[in-house]
Amino acid sequence: MNIDMIRAAAARLQGHARRTPLLSSPFLDEIAGRRLFVKPECLQHTGSFKYRGARAAVSALGEAERGRGLIAYSSGNHAQGVAQAARDFGTRAVIVMPADSPATKIANTRALGAEVVLYERDREDREEIGAQIAAERALTLIKPFDNPEVIAGQGTVGLEIAADLADASGSVLVPCGGGGLTSGIALALEAEAPGLRVRPVEPEGFDDVARSLASGRIEQNSGPTTGALCDAIITPAPGELTFPILHRLCGPGLVVSEAEALRAMALAFERLKIVAEPGGAVALAAALFHGDKLAGDTVVAVISGGNVDAPLFARALAEHGGEKPHADG
Amino acid sequence: MNIDMIRAAAARLQGHARRTPLLSSPFLDEIAGRRLFVKPECLQHTGSFKYRGARAAVSALGEAERGRGLIAYSSGNHAQGVAQAARDFGTRAVIVMPADSPATKIANTRALGAEVVLYERDREDREEIGAQIAAERALTLIKPFDNPEVIAGQGTVGLEIAADLADASGSVLVPCGGGGLTSGIALALEAEAPGLRVRPVEPEGFDDVARSLASGRIEQNSGPTTGALCDAIITPAPGELTFPILHRLCGPGLVVSEAEALRAMALAFERLKIVAEPGGAVALAAALFHGDKLAGDTVVAVISGGNVDAPLFARALAEHGGEKPHADG
Repeated sequence: MNIDMIRAAAARLQGHARRTPLLSSPFLDEIAGRRLFVKPECLQHTGSFKYRGARAAVSALGEAERGRGLIAYSSGNHAQGVAQAARDFGTRAVIVMPADSPATKIANTRALGAEVVLYERDREDREEIGAQIAAERALTLIKPFDNPEVIAGQGTVGLEIAADLADASGSVLVPCGGGGLTSGIALALEAEAPGLRVRPVEPEGFDDVARSLASGRIEQNSGPTTGALCDAIITPAPGELTFPILHRLCGPGLVVSEAEALRAMALAFERLKIVAEPGGAVALAAALFHGDKLAGDTVVAVISGGNVDAPLFARALAEHGGEKPHADG
Repeated sequence: MNIDMIRAAAARLQGHARRTPLLSSPFLDEIAGRRLFVKPECLQHTGSFKYRGARAAVSALGEAERGRGLIAYSSGNHAQGVAQAARDFGTRAVIVMPADSPATKIANTRALGAEVVLYERDREDREEIGAQIAAERALTLIKPFDNPEVIAGQGTVGLEIAADLADASGSVLVPCGGGGLTSGIALALEAEAPGLRVRPVEPEGFDDVARSLASGRIEQNSGPTTGALCDAIITPAPGELTFPILHRLCGPGLVVSEAEALRAMALAFERLKIVAEPGGAVALAAALFHGDKLAGDTVVAVISGGNVDAPLFARALAEHGGEKPHADG
């Protein structure tokens, strides 16, 4: 993994992935206590950054391999990214998804033309299911984060942040599951905006990356991950490819409560007019409510996705919106 | 009014107004029956396109005049645009607002540092109140649409659409109140993307522009305009400056129901991850549900603003979201 792979991915994504703007609001700057920029990857095709990595990986395949079809496993955002990338290239995709994924994500993945295979998250192993179908049908597996071309595609988010804020000094906060987005951004900033340091952000109870960074080796989340609010960014552990990059380049991990994530969703609605899903809002929550742990006069918060069902979004607005000065979580 | 004024406004807005992207979704293309691009001015500073015109007008004033302070009347979006522009230049703003404006808009205008003077929409005349305060305090009135520099600022939306889609053939649908945004975009496209024709869009019952275009002279809305769902784009009649431009350049007006506007808000949430207010969503509603009245293979829908209170937004999602194939209005 190196910056040249990210630049090559950016060239392949040109005209396909959307270049997202940086958003800001004086109201959010005031809460954050510094200059806050939001990178809204919820506005990316398929509603999350995952389209970048999926398209980067699929476009890097040979034509014959791509033509035989793709397989992926995902709780929903990588699923839609791979489904859209397969559709772009006119090839088929099989997506293995937990049966308890948000309804929107399952419906959209199917509507994009993919075949969805559901599994029970607490009883079945998605990697086993995926490997079996891939072998039977000669499909190419597009892993969600431990794939160099996927990391390179996600890293294009970092190239865009660097282009907009090359001379800034501070932190870039990134919602972190397996670490594909976080490690890709960290590599891009190392090369092109060295004054900005990446900080991974996770929800309370699923802080495998923060603990891994603290101990210097890959730590696991314990217990079930079924049905958690921030499902999009919950993985058992950081990846074999991503962790060494995170360890070399990132500052300590940050952890936010579910209430803080919901409050950040409400503030993104009120102040930026964008839709964030709970997992997608954790970095914004850290920027707003954990500023005491940050250095520098600038903070960038990446919103990784916006694929949230309407009832949950309405709940975030009703329970965590309005003029409250701070989340109570 | 001419294209050079719009280009000059664009130069003054450079680095201040946000350049909004064009968004799209294969799901929305399918409903619209053609290629649909959305210009999300809800992502503009202060949550609506009004910041462009306000900053363009305020930046065109002489320093002494600007320093004495500004006054504006507005149901909320122009209010916030002028308040932010005044704040940018370190001068004061008095904003005359109807007492029944959405709470968010009044609160934000105050939070941006403006002095808000409330009036009763059905008993008092905002132009009279504004003129009196302006005279007493030597403030400069920034009219919401019948001001050449305001029209020029709004026209920068059209320059951006033209830059992204110069060779396209079809329609640009624009939410239309007094006609500042619509006439500015029409002038910009006449010069830079002549294959795109502007169509003003209004809510049922407040179709003064559609009727004026049909009759060839300025027609009034009859009856009260208090508390209407699409408050942001309801004005008594098109402007003296804007109407001749609309008449020369625009195709026939389009009219959508309130239910269609709410359904468009829900689809913008689901498919684009953006927040539109009801008046801001009428052009998207026309693109989605009135495609039979459009020519060409491309349609651009401008979302003019996203300043909507949370309960109304939640209602739009609950009553008009999900897998319904069409609005019932």
